[in-house]
Amino acid sequence: MSCYFLFRMCETWMVIQMIVEIVSTGTELLLGQIVNTNAQYLARHLNTLGFDVLYQTVVGDNRERMEQVIKNALDRADLVITSGGLGPTQGDITKEVTAKVFERSIIIDEPSLDRIKAYFIKRKADMPQNNIRQAMLPEGAIAIANENGTAPGVILEHNNKVIINLPGPPHELEAMFSRSVIPYLQSKFGIQGIIISRTLHTVGIGESSLEEKIADLVKSQTNPTIALLARKGEVQIRLTAKSETENDALKVISKIENVICERVGEYIFGIDDQTMESVVSDLLIEKNLSIALAESCTGGLATSRITDVPGSSRYLIGSVICYNNRVKTREIGVPEEVIVNHGAVSAETAKAMAVGIRAKIKTDIGVGITGIAGPGGATDKKPTGLVFIAIDGNHGLKCFRYNFSGERTDIKYRASQMVLDIIRRYALTDNI
Amino acid sequence: MSCYFLFRMCETWMVIQMIVEIVSTGTELLLGQIVNTNAQYLARHLNTLGFDVLYQTVVGDNRERMEQVIKNALDRADLVITSGGLGPTQGDITKEVTAKVFERSIIIDEPSLDRIKAYFIKRKADMPQNNIRQAMLPEGAIAIANENGTAPGVILEHNNKVIINLPGPPHELEAMFSRSVIPYLQSKFGIQGIIISRTLHTVGIGESSLEEKIADLVKSQTNPTIALLARKGEVQIRLTAKSETENDALKVISKIENVICERVGEYIFGIDDQTMESVVSDLLIEKNLSIALAESCTGGLATSRITDVPGSSRYLIGSVICYNNRVKTREIGVPEEVIVNHGAVSAETAKAMAVGIRAKIKTDIGVGITGIAGPGGATDKKPTGLVFIAIDGNHGLKCFRYNFSGERTDIKYRASQMVLDIIRRYALTDNI
Repeated sequence: MSCYFLFRMCETWMVIQMIVEIVSTGTELLLGQIVNTNAQYLARHLNTLGFDVLYQTVVGDNRERMEQVIKNALDRADLVITSGGLGPTQGDITKEVTAKVFERSIIIDEPSLDRIKAYFIKRKADMPQNNIRQAMLPEGAIAIANENGTAPGVILEHNNKVIINLPGPPHELEAMFSRSVIPYLQSKFGIQGIIISRTLHTVGIGESSLEEKIADLVKSQTNPTIALLARKGEVQIRLTAKSETENDALKVISKIENVICERVGEYIFGIDDQTMESVVSDLLIEKNLSIALAESCTGGLATSRITDVPGSSRYLIGSVICYNNRVKTREIGVPEEVIVNHGAVSAETAKAMAVGIRAKIKTDIGVGITGIAGPGGATDKKPTGLVFIAIDGNHGLKCFRYNFSGERTDIKYRASQMVLDIIRRYALTDNI
Repeated sequence: MSCYFLFRMCETWMVIQMIVEIVSTGTELLLGQIVNTNAQYLARHLNTLGFDVLYQTVVGDNRERMEQVIKNALDRADLVITSGGLGPTQGDITKEVTAKVFERSIIIDEPSLDRIKAYFIKRKADMPQNNIRQAMLPEGAIAIANENGTAPGVILEHNNKVIINLPGPPHELEAMFSRSVIPYLQSKFGIQGIIISRTLHTVGIGESSLEEKIADLVKSQTNPTIALLARKGEVQIRLTAKSETENDALKVISKIENVICERVGEYIFGIDDQTMESVVSDLLIEKNLSIALAESCTGGLATSRITDVPGSSRYLIGSVICYNNRVKTREIGVPEEVIVNHGAVSAETAKAMAVGIRAKIKTDIGVGITGIAGPGGATDKKPTGLVFIAIDGNHGLKCFRYNFSGERTDIKYRASQMVLDIIRRYALTDNI
């Protein structure tokens, strides 16, 4: 990716390189207790915006060293973004050090204080006195609202340099960066046009097989660019377009998205912020379908993921985790002879579980999952990772067989992901 | 953890602080394409060895900037460890820049070249000519053999400073660090004796309350040092001792561990690599106890965590996820009047769930969990995060009430953690 800004002056484009340094603060980074994911997040997004991230530095919560690091960063970069050290304790010093470097005093920002007070009122909790420190900002700073916590962020401009202080917790930093910092940078640095990205979430196909199917597009496309990213239980296709207007960007994305959907649409389960859980939830509500699961090898994980979505009691009535065969036969009515003849891990048992749980809990859809999470219990014919998933409902009884790889918890997760995808497909259409 | 070296001179110990900077090179880090796990690995191990890692820096494969960063690092640190840039291509420049900073020439190291040639012969492949570059080392450098690749590492000493160049691929860097760099550092810096650490895992007490109870120990202790670390669902107490022999280190740890256990032992559920899941599993097997759960607000998460442990089918017979009240009454026999009179989220309902599931599945222990995971369903009297956990067995029926904070998935996780802890305490003793 190349990293330049386009300024339109009169009728010519001027190219100006904007250098960025990311400064992460926090002793836990220096001790190696956590990995620096904030630096990666910021670097990736700043590069996409067209900035040149040339340095990343980590320093502890020590005034002298942090001051030296920030001064050094401002010497060699135009924009310095810090993360961490905005908490309420005496050890949280990033704003004070920033103020000192820019020779500003620290004053209370009333709107920020009001926001912090409101945060505690909403949670029916008393605000500890030390949280007032979080509303103390360098004089002349722009406060950035924190939607997910109490610490406001800080933007401070001085002599053609900009420093931005963001909080350390990733969900606070990321929300603040995307909602407030990006619009600020776009306006401040006159970023012409707009960059939009769109993520297609796929399941049931590996990264290399997916790449093979769209390799020609990945190679030939420059706007939008196409990137594949393997994530837990899914592979993402990310389309990133740069255009003069949002409308233009959406148009170029949409054109390529259509080609991709024609080729691999059957694997795409969601777009952008959608998760498998939220997609399944939306569908079950939309179609007014109730559901119950009989889980063996997944041990409750599939139902737990379904109940991660607020309001899931609208469609999830109940589930039975039938680990022991006795629970399979007595509680959900799997005939003993099915288990004796075909084994507890078999398509027949999975089907009987789906039918049984549906009848017992009286739901529109019933799901049965049985398999070998390992490492024990495997045989030559039934290896670790073998999982049967059956689904029963108005579209009839179906069963699917999988061989998942990985450790015990990987197999459980991959199986739960396919369970959710099978529910999604079943709810979506007659043909799965 | 504080980080000093002990040099024994004549009969006195001298304390010298060794400052380290980790310099990671590579454009993929600056672009945010990968997360910097090498820095975490090195920081963690250097801290355990007793070094003070005070800075971490990332810079790209650019001669001028890398030279400036390495010079800066050598100004403020005694030991600089770089990762990356030892490959065979023209873009791999770390050794050349290191040589330039120390004013050394670059020469072929014949033993390294032989090792690279042998690497290709072993793989029955021709050695590309550019691999010869990997045998070029700064004059006077100590070469470090690479067991997992072709690029040797470099140790260079100059004016009381040391720089070590390691390769970027984590499996190469880690093997080289543990096999060669640690012994070098131990001998070079005369690290006397051994460092051992022990982690006590606690649950059911916040970081600040825990700190209050052992604050005097944390402050007064220098060997072992005591550190508190908040982790998901638990707070860890880490004791780190330095002594001349392993036996001595274990003795000083054991002495303080006993004092800590006297004060906060009731919250400690595990030691070192133990997890809550593994501790509960070991206990249920040891005591030969079977178990079944009736989960409402946790949605199957508690049972899923129990089944994360291989062999859990020995004690986990089955569970019912009774999300809907109809499932609570019909499937596990919670009397309708209990729900009508006390509400689905009440101690009475939790107790009836525990008793009901135990009777239904015929297990030694039955657990009932009901609560409000939020954000919907809360009232003034029953706020989001209110959870009742009941347990029934040979030691009688007990019920506990909690107010968990956080988002829906946090509340689910914290509740599941307390469920496991309650099972642990119940299995462990008559008094919980």
